Amino acid sequence: MRALLAHSGGPTAVINASLQGIVEEAQWHAVITGVLGARFGIEGLLAGDFVDLRALSPERLAAVGHATSSAIGTSRRAATPADLERVLDVCRANDVRWLFYTGGNGSMETARQIAAAARAAGRALGVIGVPKTIDNDLTATDHTPGYPSAARFFACATRDIGADNRALRGLVQIIEVLGRHTGWITAATTLARHRPDDAPHLVYLPEQPLPLARFLDDVQRVFDRLGRCTVTVCEGQLDEHGAPFGADVRQSSRGPLATNLAHRLALVVTERLGVKARGEKPGLLGRVSTELRSEVDWMEARRVGEAAVRAAVAGQSGLMVTLERLPGPDYGCATGLVPLDRVAGTERRFPATWIESGGQDVRSDFRDWAAPLVGPLGADEAID
Amino acid sequence: MRALLAHSGGPTAVINASLQGIVEEAQWHAVITGVLGARFGIEGLLAGDFVDLRALSPERLAAVGHATSSAIGTSRRAATPADLERVLDVCRANDVRWLFYTGGNGSMETARQIAAAARAAGRALGVIGVPKTIDNDLTATDHTPGYPSAARFFACATRDIGADNRALRGLVQIIEVLGRHTGWITAATTLARHRPDDAPHLVYLPEQPLPLARFLDDVQRVFDRLGRCTVTVCEGQLDEHGAPFGADVRQSSRGPLATNLAHRLALVVTERLGVKARGEKPGLLGRVSTELRSEVDWMEARRVGEAAVRAAVAGQSGLMVTLERLPGPDYGCATGLVPLDRVAGTERRFPATWIESGGQDVRSDFRDWAAPLVGPLGADEAID
Repeated sequence: MRALLAHSGGPTAVINASLQGIVEEAQWHAVITGVLGARFGIEGLLAGDFVDLRALSPERLAAVGHATSSAIGTSRRAATPADLERVLDVCRANDVRWLFYTGGNGSMETARQIAAAARAAGRALGVIGVPKTIDNDLTATDHTPGYPSAARFFACATRDIGADNRALRGLVQIIEVLGRHTGWITAATTLARHRPDDAPHLVYLPEQPLPLARFLDDVQRVFDRLGRCTVTVCEGQLDEHGAPFGADVRQSSRGPLATNLAHRLALVVTERLGVKARGEKPGLLGRVSTELRSEVDWMEARRVGEAAVRAAVAGQSGLMVTLERLPGPDYGCATGLVPLDRVAGTERRFPATWIESGGQDVRSDFRDWAAPLVGPLGADEAID
Repeated sequence: MRALLAHSGGPTAVINASLQGIVEEAQWHAVITGVLGARFGIEGLLAGDFVDLRALSPERLAAVGHATSSAIGTSRRAATPADLERVLDVCRANDVRWLFYTGGNGSMETARQIAAAARAAGRALGVIGVPKTIDNDLTATDHTPGYPSAARFFACATRDIGADNRALRGLVQIIEVLGRHTGWITAATTLARHRPDDAPHLVYLPEQPLPLARFLDDVQRVFDRLGRCTVTVCEGQLDEHGAPFGADVRQSSRGPLATNLAHRLALVVTERLGVKARGEKPGLLGRVSTELRSEVDWMEARRVGEAAVRAAVAGQSGLMVTLERLPGPDYGCATGLVPLDRVAGTERRFPATWIESGGQDVRSDFRDWAAPLVGPLGADEAID
């Protein structure tokens, strides 16, 4: 009886760590006679297009586990009802007894449907969801593998671009941050701040609409005081009318996203305030950067893969692995399990209680929560 | 008699390493009684606004040396004739006997003018240029401190974004690379390629105009063969009419630069070829990223600072420190000196002999030259 792994949605810098964890843990369970990987996610699942992950040498598996993006390929395609039946047939034909489905909340809905279809059809197929999304918008888990690495990328980017803004001064620098419609990654840019006047000076989360007039007031106030201003804003930020500040918009799986938000905001600042302004959009590199990955994230992603195998072998199905933060002063997470029904299709937004009352910053409670995920971060060493 | 350091132009990830090298080397020369840093480059030089770099503890100096961007601030302002006189007066008033001017070819022109003005006025002021530019367009040096780090950033970015493009397939991914009007950084993205079909698949340098029709043919051919395509293109790339492909343009100190070149090219690919395409512009982060810095670059930048102090103390003036590659199979560079006249205002473009005949790639001679600067780079570990 074989195990099958499929990836779904955009890859992260640690999705291969979960792959490594699954393959390694499976070696400890004699009941698992093979571990397959679906090529390009659900496409491979439907076509029976698999790679043999047991054929990898330990050295190659470790190299794969440390490499960014998905080594087996992934897909953004959602499953249709006809697909579900086909997946069950392909699994039976290939002697697949356990399916590990890696992804975010849309993918967990697909995993839930496959598990339900298997149960309804009386098929012996255990389905376990393996969480993965940089957006950190999955419910019922302390955080999601992939998020700490994206958070680290944008915290480092904000420190480095902020240091440039300090050294050159006279400029408003607007940094566009990933995260779709949740502000988790944008909030983490505040970890760049070691001294009160370090970047970011203004931090906007899409959980709160941002009136254009207030944005301009905020920028003017910081610029008047410091002669510079570094802003971080989430790609999904909307104004008080629900519009993306006149930016060009593309459709994403969960609503419209601006293609040039930071650039647009910089133009508005220059027009309205008469101040030089620039937009920066580090973009999808923030989702997949190998070198800026969080080490905690990598280790947790691997352990989440291991926990998925243990749950499957124990006969469980229709669950997703979670991370549960342990109490006490030192950071640690245990893995847990939650029914896919509780996760699929939901979206955990950034808590209002962690946003400062003015809406231009996040509270220190959040930074205490996020700091161990992101890891140590050097300061901008300005000489005053 | 004191030494004075000023930064000019956009900071790099290793400009503070040269600062550290200058301060440390100065400690070995009893004739130097103080080391000052000009706040915000020529602005501080004109206003006599200095920080005392000798006041830094060794620990703090090491922290500064490893931090990105300029710890003392910099300026993009060019010097006027009136400025030159003022600089000489400020130096005399502050007992400054040696001036270290850090920057690219525009800044070396300023350094040359200050040295000439001092000589003409019979002032005892030695001026030494300390090279710094990510663009690598300074002549008379093997390469410029700052370039290897930017090259490493974009090589890593191309590998990581290319891995995403492979894993998700069905997409043309266009990555816009820094370098203004020279292709040195863009050429280094080829170091991401470990296997023949790894990204980047197409590499365009601004040293050659790129007819739009040829670009579209190239993309179509790669996409037909691989079902994906990752392109790297320099921000200064122009088409056969000398135009930036319809992109919005901003003025830089050396001609127009597109603000949205990758995005524009992606739109053109979608319109003309009917293929999904996206533009990515990692942007100025490529100039200042701390974590993606090249270690060789950091060490060389520090040594260039040390060499500048030795030259100044030996009574030399009107020279720039260079890096001279040592012969033999193992990489190594010695420092040298070149008259500022030979560097100031010139621009070293990427050699035509290192561009493949089709104009979509660079030759292995370049990769052999660049690899030791950029340092080891892990592969995209795709499982076929």
